[in-house]
Amino acid sequence: MSTFGTLFKVSTFGESHGKGVGCIVDGVPPNMELTEADIQTQLTRRRPGQSVITTERKEFDKVTILSGTEFGKTLGTPICMVVMNEDQRKHDYATTDVCPRPGHAEYTYLQKYGCKASSGGGRSSARETIGRVAAGALAEKYLAQTYGTQIVCWVSSIMDIEIPKDEARALEERCPSREEVDTVGAVIHGEVEKVLMDSNGDWYDLTGKPIAKKAGVEVKGAVLHTRCPHPPTAARMAARIMELRIAEDSTGGIATTVIKTLPAGLGEPVFDKVEAELAKAMMSLPATKGFEIGAGFGCTRMKGSEHNDLFVPAHGAKAGVLDTATNHAGGTLGGITTGKPLVLRVAIKPASSIAQSQQTATYDGKESALEVKGRHDPCVLSRCPPLLEGMAAITILDLVLRQKSRTDAPLHCAQLTGEERELNGRPAKRAKHA
Amino acid sequence: MSTFGTLFKVSTFGESHGKGVGCIVDGVPPNMELTEADIQTQLTRRRPGQSVITTERKEFDKVTILSGTEFGKTLGTPICMVVMNEDQRKHDYATTDVCPRPGHAEYTYLQKYGCKASSGGGRSSARETIGRVAAGALAEKYLAQTYGTQIVCWVSSIMDIEIPKDEARALEERCPSREEVDTVGAVIHGEVEKVLMDSNGDWYDLTGKPIAKKAGVEVKGAVLHTRCPHPPTAARMAARIMELRIAEDSTGGIATTVIKTLPAGLGEPVFDKVEAELAKAMMSLPATKGFEIGAGFGCTRMKGSEHNDLFVPAHGAKAGVLDTATNHAGGTLGGITTGKPLVLRVAIKPASSIAQSQQTATYDGKESALEVKGRHDPCVLSRCPPLLEGMAAITILDLVLRQKSRTDAPLHCAQLTGEERELNGRPAKRAKHA
Amino acid sequence: MSTFGTLFKVSTFGESHGKGVGCIVDGVPPNMELTEADIQTQLTRRRPGQSVITTERKEFDKVTILSGTEFGKTLGTPICMVVMNEDQRKHDYATTDVCPRPGHAEYTYLQKYGCKASSGGGRSSARETIGRVAAGALAEKYLAQTYGTQIVCWVSSIMDIEIPKDEARALEERCPSREEVDTVGAVIHGEVEKVLMDSNGDWYDLTGKPIAKKAGVEVKGAVLHTRCPHPPTAARMAARIMELRIAEDSTGGIATTVIKTLPAGLGEPVFDKVEAELAKAMMSLPATKGFEIGAGFGCTRMKGSEHNDLFVPAHGAKAGVLDTATNHAGGTLGGITTGKPLVLRVAIKPASSIAQSQQTATYDGKESALEVKGRHDPCVLSRCPPLLEGMAAITILDLVLRQKSRTDAPLHCAQLTGEERELNGRPAKRAKHA
Amino acid sequence: MSTFGTLFKVSTFGESHGKGVGCIVDGVPPNMELTEADIQTQLTRRRPGQSVITTERKEFDKVTILSGTEFGKTLGTPICMVVMNEDQRKHDYATTDVCPRPGHAEYTYLQKYGCKASSGGGRSSARETIGRVAAGALAEKYLAQTYGTQIVCWVSSIMDIEIPKDEARALEERCPSREEVDTVGAVIHGEVEKVLMDSNGDWYDLTGKPIAKKAGVEVKGAVLHTRCPHPPTAARMAARIMELRIAEDSTGGIATTVIKTLPAGLGEPVFDKVEAELAKAMMSLPATKGFEIGAGFGCTRMKGSEHNDLFVPAHGAKAGVLDTATNHAGGTLGGITTGKPLVLRVAIKPASSIAQSQQTATYDGKESALEVKGRHDPCVLSRCPPLLEGMAAITILDLVLRQKSRTDAPLHCAQLTGEERELNGRPAKRAKHA
Repeated sequence: MSTFGTLFKVSTFGESHGKGVGCIVDGVPPNMELTEADIQTQLTRRRPGQSVITTERKEFDKVTILSGTEFGKTLGTPICMVVMNEDQRKHDYATTDVCPRPGHAEYTYLQKYGCKASSGGGRSSARETIGRVAAGALAEKYLAQTYGTQIVCWVSSIMDIEIPKDEARALEERCPSREEVDTVGAVIHGEVEKVLMDSNGDWYDLTGKPIAKKAGVEVKGAVLHTRCPHPPTAARMAARIMELRIAEDSTGGIATTVIKTLPAGLGEPVFDKVEAELAKAMMSLPATKGFEIGAGFGCTRMKGSEHNDLFVPAHGAKAGVLDTATNHAGGTLGGITTGKPLVLRVAIKPASSIAQSQQTATYDGKESALEVKGRHDPCVLSRCPPLLEGMAAITILDLVLRQKSRTDAPLHCAQLTGEERELNGRPAKRAKHA
Repeated sequence: MSTFGTLFKVSTFGESHGKGVGCIVDGVPPNMELTEADIQTQLTRRRPGQSVITTERKEFDKVTILSGTEFGKTLGTPICMVVMNEDQRKHDYATTDVCPRPGHAEYTYLQKYGCKASSGGGRSSARETIGRVAAGALAEKYLAQTYGTQIVCWVSSIMDIEIPKDEARALEERCPSREEVDTVGAVIHGEVEKVLMDSNGDWYDLTGKPIAKKAGVEVKGAVLHTRCPHPPTAARMAARIMELRIAEDSTGGIATTVIKTLPAGLGEPVFDKVEAELAKAMMSLPATKGFEIGAGFGCTRMKGSEHNDLFVPAHGAKAGVLDTATNHAGGTLGGITTGKPLVLRVAIKPASSIAQSQQTATYDGKESALEVKGRHDPCVLSRCPPLLEGMAAITILDLVLRQKSRTDAPLHCAQLTGEERELNGRPAKRAKHA
Repeated sequence: MSTFGTLFKVSTFGESHGKGVGCIVDGVPPNMELTEADIQTQLTRRRPGQSVITTERKEFDKVTILSGTEFGKTLGTPICMVVMNEDQRKHDYATTDVCPRPGHAEYTYLQKYGCKASSGGGRSSARETIGRVAAGALAEKYLAQTYGTQIVCWVSSIMDIEIPKDEARALEERCPSREEVDTVGAVIHGEVEKVLMDSNGDWYDLTGKPIAKKAGVEVKGAVLHTRCPHPPTAARMAARIMELRIAEDSTGGIATTVIKTLPAGLGEPVFDKVEAELAKAMMSLPATKGFEIGAGFGCTRMKGSEHNDLFVPAHGAKAGVLDTATNHAGGTLGGITTGKPLVLRVAIKPASSIAQSQQTATYDGKESALEVKGRHDPCVLSRCPPLLEGMAAITILDLVLRQKSRTDAPLHCAQLTGEERELNGRPAKRAKHA
Repeated sequence: MSTFGTLFKVSTFGESHGKGVGCIVDGVPPNMELTEADIQTQLTRRRPGQSVITTERKEFDKVTILSGTEFGKTLGTPICMVVMNEDQRKHDYATTDVCPRPGHAEYTYLQKYGCKASSGGGRSSARETIGRVAAGALAEKYLAQTYGTQIVCWVSSIMDIEIPKDEARALEERCPSREEVDTVGAVIHGEVEKVLMDSNGDWYDLTGKPIAKKAGVEVKGAVLHTRCPHPPTAARMAARIMELRIAEDSTGGIATTVIKTLPAGLGEPVFDKVEAELAKAMMSLPATKGFEIGAGFGCTRMKGSEHNDLFVPAHGAKAGVLDTATNHAGGTLGGITTGKPLVLRVAIKPASSIAQSQQTATYDGKESALEVKGRHDPCVLSRCPPLLEGMAAITILDLVLRQKSRTDAPLHCAQLTGEERELNGRPAKRAKHA
């Protein structure tokens, strides 16, 4: 259904071409400062039309809070947030009335409901995620205020262009800030030209094969957001995306998310393990095809003697709190957070909408071909971080509230660094364990 | 918590060294034939002690149905199934009172609950999965009877030993039977000797490095179950495991699951997408670190024009039912089943219990070393198929019941082959879509 | 929390003096015709300011559907409905910042959340029920269309004025239409005068005690809605309310609800029995203090030999379908509907807001007195029917969807009378169900 | 379904004539002392065969804890408790294969599931409540330990025999102990004789009409448990029951429950109000037909100026905590506990099983008569207190855990009287809470 969470409960609504989209968030901690401005930042980061790399449809996605706050503070009651759709035209996608677009959901919606939204993705559109991003921004604010939790997501690969292994691991360990992801990941269009264009102005793809540059593809001086915080990789990603734009094709990639400075003890055995809840959260986002935590699929090639994270005393922490020398587990043991950062990666499929003509069949069983008109994202990866950060925040806050129900003591973040402690403005305390 | 599912609801209970383990299954379809024999098969497949590859602890895991059936038929009421623990000794793991075992959950249980089971894994032990396997066997029987659904899981890699890519894909397409997985995946011990032993009786690992064979490791004529349905890979897997047994180490691997002949239209947008529910189900199993569906992480390296599954008319099917030429999506679009097989892979971490001495720390913060006594599985992969099959069945049946609530017509399996139709003993019908 | 239901899930939001109120309804059956007009009728019936008996605040409560429909049909996706608040002034109730109003919830909200809405009831205001009424209207439309279900609620007592026992029972048996409730229950103001005023124009209460008539209380020719379908009782109720209005006091009453022509087999043993779900639904409405079904509290004075509803063959029904000679059980046995009408009564407390000065205490523990300004309903009973009808419809539809998940056959309404059959315009044995 | 609760989750299983009955309780607070002895007391109070007033079937109902504890302490993991059925004979009720017993659930189970347990009540039997009583005993222990909460239920009326109004109200205010209910409510058989028998040994009913005393009905010296803590009423109740036993008839009654010394702030607006959750809990018990809280149905006859509980400063309590002069609301405002005692009453229907021959119909639609053999309770009221106390405890603990998730401070019981403080053996303002 359209509701996620047990105590922090997010219900989203809205189709891409209906009147509006949004969410109700229930279980919001009371007495927290909250205005639209707290929400808008992530909605704006999520929004398309930010650069030539992503689609140019204009959406401003201005959020309104309809309930649950008074005088800028939460009441503890449900918060309804709405973003009205500015573009409600229903005719753009009319061909999809006759035959389904490959890779899209109109076929399965028809199988499920016996009907489908006539225009665009309806409920399966990425616009549905606006409600999640709004709810996520709210959750994140609470976690940051209360525990100093930081949640940062970045693009670690696009097609075959990936951050080199060692540097990828180093990034996961130090966890760049969200600002760094946005800034470092922004590639000036000229950088792409340097990669793809030779001195004659002829374009070649990354393998050196000449490509026919279509007019209007590049925009002088434009900023291409990759959200990859590794500059040389970011530039090559931008080039790869430009190639695909020219080829009227698309691709996918991998996004890495780190959640750090979070309480130990989160996750509800046995079915609601922290990694199970995160996997569900991430795999419920459109276009996701894989999820891994810690060493992930890579761990299957390791030996137990390598993979086991050895326990070490945690310097300066109170009795009962241990650290681990490594974090192959990605912050979870037995489905419960250790207090180490949660490190997870999500596979995003190539965008299904491509301008090329594709083979398909009509609903009444005749072969047909389909060209999906309009401007399409060759790669949606750069828009994903607010979605993944949002779902991560929602998931963690729900588990926080569930764990709070179990104890009378405040939850603790076991292994704060000195820097994090200062960030929190309070000592790294922990609950007593007799 | 310990309950999974919305309408088909499975609640498990039990610690590894308590009186017993089991489950309550609620929402069971009434009037279905069911006796302990239907459940026992999968419990027996799950059980350790089946060969020298897995641990030799003896457990018979005999299941008793306490409620919900009469005269061998389900009543529609909750079915409680119990397996009593035969070995309730609590002293084997006493050293874990002082310091946590690396890779195990006693540390996080202590963080979460302020206490932990004193012996073995308690609730985080693999014995907890007995309740799931029992519930899964029940779900599977219903799905097979009603829709002809087949759910088969096999081991596709162990450490670096993996089924070659093309053959792996071919296996996914044809989907071997469970019997084939068990039979073909069973390696006579002599086969391992052929791989690892030279004519002088000296042993070498798979890279040609000599290994010191420990007495008692090999058992003449024993059968080593790998559950890899690709014979040459199975033999090499068995050899790799034998090497690790000798080295007192462990490893992980990847298990592939195929669910075929299932209704189209399953999966509840937006949070309870079929892949989201399956991801949660699988990532809630102990030792799982990654999940992917269809082309999975591999899809991130594809182009949209390659990855999109093109629609084609479904020969012989009724109007409104289409097929796809390929199945890169792994049977789901927009979180709803297409009717094509669901194909998923799960990463299992190296077994945490190894006989080697490992560094750890005492709960009161002193460095320490720990040897976990007893016989340990160097690799748990071969025991996983009943677990994954069980969770898959539970997840799909829950989604089936949820979809049934939406329609007055029986659900249909869109793309039955002639063979499957015979299996079901009825025509491949589908719901009307006006 | 603010969500009700398992498969038909209603989440409400909104404070009385915030921007708006409304709901998300998830699990809506697809392909059903639905426009704002279907919803507005019940919202308008619920609205205050309809007569001098109820408060004169003007609210138009115009509903907008933001999502989940296209071209006037439901898509099966969540339907968000919003009613904007026209009066968002926050100053009317400012004295409640210092001390809580007796009988209101601001004190307990403060205990629970550590804060409270500064104006009026906030979330505990009756405006919250707008979302329920909207969702209920939707549910009701589906039930009426599919099964011919009728849900009618009326006022059976106000303070000591009640429909005589035998006639109350007869009404429950024949179940008046909603139109009858509205029409017959509307008392012309002159009728009240006839009851309370003597030939000299002096007013007396129903016991014959003279009352000081305040100027402006009566409105010549105004219609006083009681929603009591028993004319002599309605007139006396109107008189009693007028007395209380003059006395600046209030009272409560009992509302009776009948749900008829509904499928047998609804209700989920053991915790989600139909009477348990209905009890929760009704007791979740503001101001409700009691619930009973069938003979209710009265059954405790009966003998088993009187109370047991004897089974009789159902003439013309299919084998296996029985009728009962009486319906003391109120349509449920073992928590499952028999197919006979569900008959339930709900006790509503005296309205807490009265114009009289009342004793209270300030939050910091000093004695104080409070006059709650503004016009208040002396009795909210006449506004309750749309609320109770709405909650009944929501509850029953949720149970219908849950039962549908259990069977491949359409649910049936066992015991339609000939009249009901004509009403439904189709044969009795199976609704829709061709 | 068979699961109740959000965080404290109780799932029951078992049919009356299957192998056993019981429950899984999830969300149990860890580190609490718990053994079978803590559970057995209430199970024994619930058990039939305690006196001639109740049925003489022998059931010992010995509970076994299968999981979730170690060394007599809870682990925080699910606790499975089982009571094996000693009498599994299936032939006693064989006539019910042909026609349903009036007032019983076999007819509706058949409508719902298409099948029914062939013997006795199956899942609708009162034996199902064993799991609830066991879970309730556990919940109650936690509440008593943590907050000093007391939950006491007693029988306040049987048929027309009721505690006089004023004394009933006084009892609700002082809340007798459970021991008092059991002791004072136990009527020596001789007392019944004094009421019903004249000096000649002839028996007359309470209205003076002679009754034919059947042999074997009275047992010299036997104790008749009424659980009515008002001696004169208890004696008359016992007499009324004896009359009905002789007449082979049955009756119902009202049970009153008081929950006192509980935290303020419990209850989750808007659907999960404390009275809504309690209503559902109580109405989910077999044979319940009505629920009311505080003044209940009686409040409908009051004026607002009488019914409103006026706030008064709470002497000695902390700032922000108020008391009310009266408790007509029964401890709840806006669905949230005030900290005053919750006072609720539940209507229980006449026992459906009577030895008299009753009219019924066969499932294939022929008229028939049915005599239900065996010994039957003329009135089940005296067995109800452990059921209602159990459901009350389960409901309150679930709401406690939900409220704890909202705050970092321990919950507090606002308004302990001096007497309650002594009872708890600790200071009033904050329970436990060091």
